[in-house]
Amino acid sequence: MTTTVLSARDRMLRAQSAARSVGLLSDRAKSTALQAIADAIEAATDDIVAANAEDLARGAESGLSIGLQDRLRLDATRVSALAAAVRDVAELPDPVGRVLDRRTLANGVELTKVSVPFGVVGSIYEARPNVTVDIAALALRSGNAVVLRGGTAAEKTNAALIAVMRAALAAEGIDPEAIQTVDEFGREGARELMQARGIVDVLVPRGSAQLIETVVTESSVPVIETGAGVVHILLDATAPLEWAREIVVNAKVQRPSVCNAVETVLVHRDAAERLVGPVVGALQERGVTVHGDAAVAALASGIVPATDADWATEHLSLELSMRVVDDLDEALEHIRQYSTHHTESIITQDDAAAERFLAEVDSAVVMANASTRFTDGAEFGFGAEVGISTQKLHARGPMGLPELTSTKWLARGSGQVRV
Amino acid sequence: MTTTVLSARDRMLRAQSAARSVGLLSDRAKSTALQAIADAIEAATDDIVAANAEDLARGAESGLSIGLQDRLRLDATRVSALAAAVRDVAELPDPVGRVLDRRTLANGVELTKVSVPFGVVGSIYEARPNVTVDIAALALRSGNAVVLRGGTAAEKTNAALIAVMRAALAAEGIDPEAIQTVDEFGREGARELMQARGIVDVLVPRGSAQLIETVVTESSVPVIETGAGVVHILLDATAPLEWAREIVVNAKVQRPSVCNAVETVLVHRDAAERLVGPVVGALQERGVTVHGDAAVAALASGIVPATDADWATEHLSLELSMRVVDDLDEALEHIRQYSTHHTESIITQDDAAAERFLAEVDSAVVMANASTRFTDGAEFGFGAEVGISTQKLHARGPMGLPELTSTKWLARGSGQVRV
Repeated sequence: MTTTVLSARDRMLRAQSAARSVGLLSDRAKSTALQAIADAIEAATDDIVAANAEDLARGAESGLSIGLQDRLRLDATRVSALAAAVRDVAELPDPVGRVLDRRTLANGVELTKVSVPFGVVGSIYEARPNVTVDIAALALRSGNAVVLRGGTAAEKTNAALIAVMRAALAAEGIDPEAIQTVDEFGREGARELMQARGIVDVLVPRGSAQLIETVVTESSVPVIETGAGVVHILLDATAPLEWAREIVVNAKVQRPSVCNAVETVLVHRDAAERLVGPVVGALQERGVTVHGDAAVAALASGIVPATDADWATEHLSLELSMRVVDDLDEALEHIRQYSTHHTESIITQDDAAAERFLAEVDSAVVMANASTRFTDGAEFGFGAEVGISTQKLHARGPMGLPELTSTKWLARGSGQVRV
Repeated sequence: MTTTVLSARDRMLRAQSAARSVGLLSDRAKSTALQAIADAIEAATDDIVAANAEDLARGAESGLSIGLQDRLRLDATRVSALAAAVRDVAELPDPVGRVLDRRTLANGVELTKVSVPFGVVGSIYEARPNVTVDIAALALRSGNAVVLRGGTAAEKTNAALIAVMRAALAAEGIDPEAIQTVDEFGREGARELMQARGIVDVLVPRGSAQLIETVVTESSVPVIETGAGVVHILLDATAPLEWAREIVVNAKVQRPSVCNAVETVLVHRDAAERLVGPVVGALQERGVTVHGDAAVAALASGIVPATDADWATEHLSLELSMRVVDDLDEALEHIRQYSTHHTESIITQDDAAAERFLAEVDSAVVMANASTRFTDGAEFGFGAEVGISTQKLHARGPMGLPELTSTKWLARGSGQVRV
């Protein structure tokens, strides 16, 4: 066996070439390939766990945080979960070939707008082996090739997973070059991926706000920004205590480390006396530290004084910022200033206030009387989630498989010319 | 009256602020405002033509080409045409507030996906005063504020047009800051516009390939690329002579300076002897210079030898490149290598070849047996055209008003939390 040294660019060009055949695969062929990948992942559990152990040992030596070590860790149960996720994707409807528009011109030319794969999807992410499998499966289901850059901490694990997936594709008669990694090229690989305009069609970063900022700033490949969530809940003057308490607690405590968890609660002055005490009490009972302004501190005990920095902070932990606002206008102004345009919710019994909030808040998902934790592809019924877009181009909010497709106009004529 | 010196950034921030109220305007208010703008433009014809004369005089002094001087020139007739175009936009349906998806979760939360304005649309373009009015009107119709950078050659004309449009907005009680220019800041204004991520939501460059390349490369604001067209027609083995001749002549000659005009004709070897002579003859009769490969030169007279550069050239003039290919595979390979992914068409009577071409060519519009000149918003029945996107994200092909909107999910609940 000869060893070929391929550059990062060579690998991306191979992905581009593979994308042509993968883009033409039938629904059934893609689904069957994903089932084969799931089986292959489970069959290779021992190899994958062994590779993962190498990454974990290196991580422990280099001082990787316990939290990141946990994210990185794969055992047999987690490998099975990876395979199960691939099987779920295999069963989703094919997003390619949907007819999105159809019109016949007066001269008889028939126009059809159909969904088509992007071609090559790139992803840059951090220390999460599950993303390696998720993104590869979602890309393949939507007829795309994929180029992955998964970070040094998970390098061996990702290499093992990618080798298994590529072998499974080859065994199914599908070009294995459709799944590529530039991990071994380190930061230079990430840089080349970001500059591969014309080869890579879209780049989806997944990870910290800093990683996403770097990709958005440095990439000449179009990026779908999946973003940080400085998520707000406004307790309006008429907010029922029970809804306020249950929704705020759920939105903060159920899973504090994710982007749809609430970070800041705004309380209408007219409701402050009625709501601040019980809501803060319920949060504190669940171990939440509340950073509050003076008005909040006057109505509850155990409040850490809020700083200006708190309003812009995505805590991602059992910490929450709380502020009393004079009215809906002040709440909207606060949200305009600090929101990352992910999700905001108003708790109110005033329909006019709810509708104004829904109309004026400029975020991917705007809610009335529901927990911000519902901003999620699975909750929305998409069956899979590519990420949650916080930008306005192409996709906004939870992205499902259709968001991994582009469109193409087909025109069928019989000799027509323009007059 | 005091003179306030505003920076480019100040102007963009004012546009962002104005976008909030403009985004909430009713269909009727936007339509009425556009009618008022059209009236105001016609009423100000003398001022606009006078400002334009200053630009033209400066252009003539500085050696602006005759072609560009003609693009720049406004007389009373052309000013009326600008106003008429605004009236057309006023009558288009409002693209904001369309319900694009609706689902009720098992827990009763109602989700609605609606179209919303982007917020602030930026445009960088060159020496075409009609774009100033077109983009401002399209942006306003879709509830967006706009920041324009129209190039130094048209500076006085654009300033006059923008002053008229802003005054008309103010008279209608609409925030005039919704129409902004950064023209007076020159290249620095363009640079700041490209870096205004978080203020400007999307940037639409219109102009030369070089201008678009610069914007795509330098902008951190998401860009919708409207691109160059190295457009191909393949004359397949079974192409009827009449269709081949009429479509190629129409696609090249009807308006050679636009992006949907054909630049390269590929001829299947089995049809070369039958088609090359008559098609080249028909082109030459219409004044077209044909750059051909050796096989073409062997079948027709007056052929300029084609160079490698010709295949990548968007002539935008009465010049055309022509090559004989062995088969459909070679044609697809040539198109993959040289296409700018705008429009390609196959002329054939072989349905299998047509369907393969439609499936495998990766362009915004792929045709069988029709002139490439049909790739156009008006021809597609969109009523207005924002540009023709040659990228795959958000919009592909001719863009109408809906492509100037984003989406937002609205969630209406009654106290639901995630379990």
